[in-house]
Amino acid sequence: MADWQEITGGVTAPKGYRAAGITAGLKPSGLPDLALIVSDIEAIAAGVFTTSQVKAACVDYCRQRLQAKQGARAILCNAGQANAATGSQGVHDADESAELLAKELNISPELILLASTGVIGQRIKMDALRSGIPKLVASLSETGSDAAAGAIITTDLVTKSIALETTISDASGGLRQRPVRIGGIAKGSGMIHPNMATMLAFVTCDAAVSPHLWQQMLSRAADKSFNSITVDGDTSTNDSLIALANGQSRTPAITEMGAEAEKLEAMLTAVCQHLAKAIARDGEGATCLIEVQVTGTHDDLSARQIAKTIAGSSLVKSAIFGRDPNWGRIAAAAGRAGVPFEQDNLQIKLGDFLLLENSQPLQFDRAAASAYLKQAATDYPVVDLVATNNSNDLSGDVQGQAAARLRSNIKTQRLDNPVIIAVSVGNGHGTGKAWGCDLSYDYVKINAEYTT
Amino acid sequence: MADWQEITGGVTAPKGYRAAGITAGLKPSGLPDLALIVSDIEAIAAGVFTTSQVKAACVDYCRQRLQAKQGARAILCNAGQANAATGSQGVHDADESAELLAKELNISPELILLASTGVIGQRIKMDALRSGIPKLVASLSETGSDAAAGAIITTDLVTKSIALETTISDASGGLRQRPVRIGGIAKGSGMIHPNMATMLAFVTCDAAVSPHLWQQMLSRAADKSFNSITVDGDTSTNDSLIALANGQSRTPAITEMGAEAEKLEAMLTAVCQHLAKAIARDGEGATCLIEVQVTGTHDDLSARQIAKTIAGSSLVKSAIFGRDPNWGRIAAAAGRAGVPFEQDNLQIKLGDFLLLENSQPLQFDRAAASAYLKQAATDYPVVDLVATNNSNDLSGDVQGQAAARLRSNIKTQRLDNPVIIAVSVGNGHGTGKAWGCDLSYDYVKINAEYTT
Repeated sequence: MADWQEITGGVTAPKGYRAAGITAGLKPSGLPDLALIVSDIEAIAAGVFTTSQVKAACVDYCRQRLQAKQGARAILCNAGQANAATGSQGVHDADESAELLAKELNISPELILLASTGVIGQRIKMDALRSGIPKLVASLSETGSDAAAGAIITTDLVTKSIALETTISDASGGLRQRPVRIGGIAKGSGMIHPNMATMLAFVTCDAAVSPHLWQQMLSRAADKSFNSITVDGDTSTNDSLIALANGQSRTPAITEMGAEAEKLEAMLTAVCQHLAKAIARDGEGATCLIEVQVTGTHDDLSARQIAKTIAGSSLVKSAIFGRDPNWGRIAAAAGRAGVPFEQDNLQIKLGDFLLLENSQPLQFDRAAASAYLKQAATDYPVVDLVATNNSNDLSGDVQGQAAARLRSNIKTQRLDNPVIIAVSVGNGHGTGKAWGCDLSYDYVKINAEYTT
Repeated sequence: MADWQEITGGVTAPKGYRAAGITAGLKPSGLPDLALIVSDIEAIAAGVFTTSQVKAACVDYCRQRLQAKQGARAILCNAGQANAATGSQGVHDADESAELLAKELNISPELILLASTGVIGQRIKMDALRSGIPKLVASLSETGSDAAAGAIITTDLVTKSIALETTISDASGGLRQRPVRIGGIAKGSGMIHPNMATMLAFVTCDAAVSPHLWQQMLSRAADKSFNSITVDGDTSTNDSLIALANGQSRTPAITEMGAEAEKLEAMLTAVCQHLAKAIARDGEGATCLIEVQVTGTHDDLSARQIAKTIAGSSLVKSAIFGRDPNWGRIAAAAGRAGVPFEQDNLQIKLGDFLLLENSQPLQFDRAAASAYLKQAATDYPVVDLVATNNSNDLSGDVQGQAAARLRSNIKTQRLDNPVIIAVSVGNGHGTGKAWGCDLSYDYVKINAEYTT
């Protein structure tokens, strides 16, 4: 049983946060493209960033800022240009963005963190940014989360948002409980033409946590969420997860692991997992969410490694798209994950269907298993971005517009009926999960630009 | 300049080898399904096998045989059933296959190596095998390579075969040269429904080489060929490369590295690379071969790792299919390969088009670059295997039949016009190559079975 409840409000659900999202003119389409999250007071800040050797200017900027000072007041995010592979000019643009916002907020530029998403090799449109920032700050509101969530997306078909609330003891060992909230927004649907890279997630929390512990919690939560999803295995130049904790819940500071810290970390992990699953489900051309559960390894890391290999296998993904209960591909993916196990112990379940036990295939109702796969495919509209594509448009914005049109057809994104692949490889106590999506014609369609 | 010439004859081009391929009735389709390669005398044998934790019975069988004795007279290969995930019965079937052949050849079963390809979870049809083996042995011929090459394929659209000849000094330091030959056949086109797994390659050589050195040469050649191709990143349960060297060229035994050994290893590597490229080009739904060349790393291994990551990127592969000179995806893939480099040093070329230098995008003729990508797509027929698919047929044989029909339309497989992606990441001396193919609609089509 989860120790928390879902609430509304996204990143502005926790106390002491405001957010905004506006159209600054960075995207040619006139869609929202500039987002801001501000904490009323300086918050503890933690971050997890792309491991790629090719990094956007904002990633280097944030790493340096957080190394110097693990605190922040604001996160500024632009969509349209990735500001990656833009050299020293890109670094200068990032610095200027922070200075402009700092002036408008009347705070030090050191308290500002940055994120960008869009086309690799393109500088941020600084003129639009300069004139947009005052408007952005003027739009800040305690109900601004949805606007911010809408301004960070590119080709996403849905905005991604969540907020959870739990209670923390008012004083050490005390019986009185006070509410604590964590909210989050995210963007990402794999990588998409032309280089609309990047997974971004911003998390806010009103608990008081020590900087070192908050970073540890975030890193572990990222491993169990954003680092456990795969759309196509491609890591972007701009991937960033930033989390603020501002203590405005007025609960006692959590400075070491213990019952309250575990409670908070579990809720942080749940927020990250929700956003991660939403990204996986929104994978390009995907028709369903896939959850792989692995047990029986020596440790959790090994289990997660097997789970990710299965979730990332093109063969498994295309079999699921074809509603084909193809255990052989699952077994083959498990076998090549780089984790030693006795193949005689291998067990594979698809939903409630036991397909393989002790490495021996079992008889099962193939039609029923296929029907199980079929029910997981919810009525996401078929993506037809390429039909509206214009090969001379290098901004990726045409696809963004097409995505925007599709968005209006999606009322809710269902994350509660994934295809569940459960694999056991032995008697160890390690467990791990990973999430992904199926591989459809539309993935290829979206990612193969027709210049002819 | 290569130090060898191409000759005809495949695995029977080297002296002292015979081969055969027949229809034994293992595949329901009546297509050839049983192959045999025999050396007149006991040959030195080396092997490289799947690293998967889930292995076919034949893989365990060969590993044990070669550990006990690095010599062999024959390689028996069946197509149709993978004999993987078949438990102790599968082990028994493998042993019986070797014993049956040994009796027919009148040799010890210890001199027989085995390979299987086909459906995971299915036992070899032993009745068909038993009645087929006498016929197979009776068909052995010094021109039997093509028959063998045709009997090991499953959904491949072309058979894969090569033979090269060079000369080796007649005596140590002697001026008289004698011809030495290496031949090879292979199968593989990625993995395919339902679990038509497996890359197989069999190499014959008539040089005399010491066992330890032959294994070393083969392992290195495998790293530069079969381990440097990627179709979909999925490693099979049955992947096997077996190489025999029988000394029938009557050249002096090569027992340590030196000029003659290097010459032989270079030719062995060329044979393996030809077969590996042929497999990559025959990837499911592929329209072109992609060669990635990486330079400037600290060591060769790092270069190969970057090359493989680029060649395996779904985003790069679908961009190539779309004839889109998308350097951003190439940069992103290079960046996430796990090899540290200074991103400022990154340079990317596509054919003759320099796209990125010092991590800065350059102006280039986009239409011409797209035309370059287009010319690499030769006129392989479009694969339409699924149209003929029957969801109740779990043998994969229906697709094998469809593939057979297509084969007749392919006169030659062009390997001489790959799309070349050249990436430099610094000033190091490391170099490496990898090969792959593009990702097309047909990949998804072939791999997504429609059970509905």
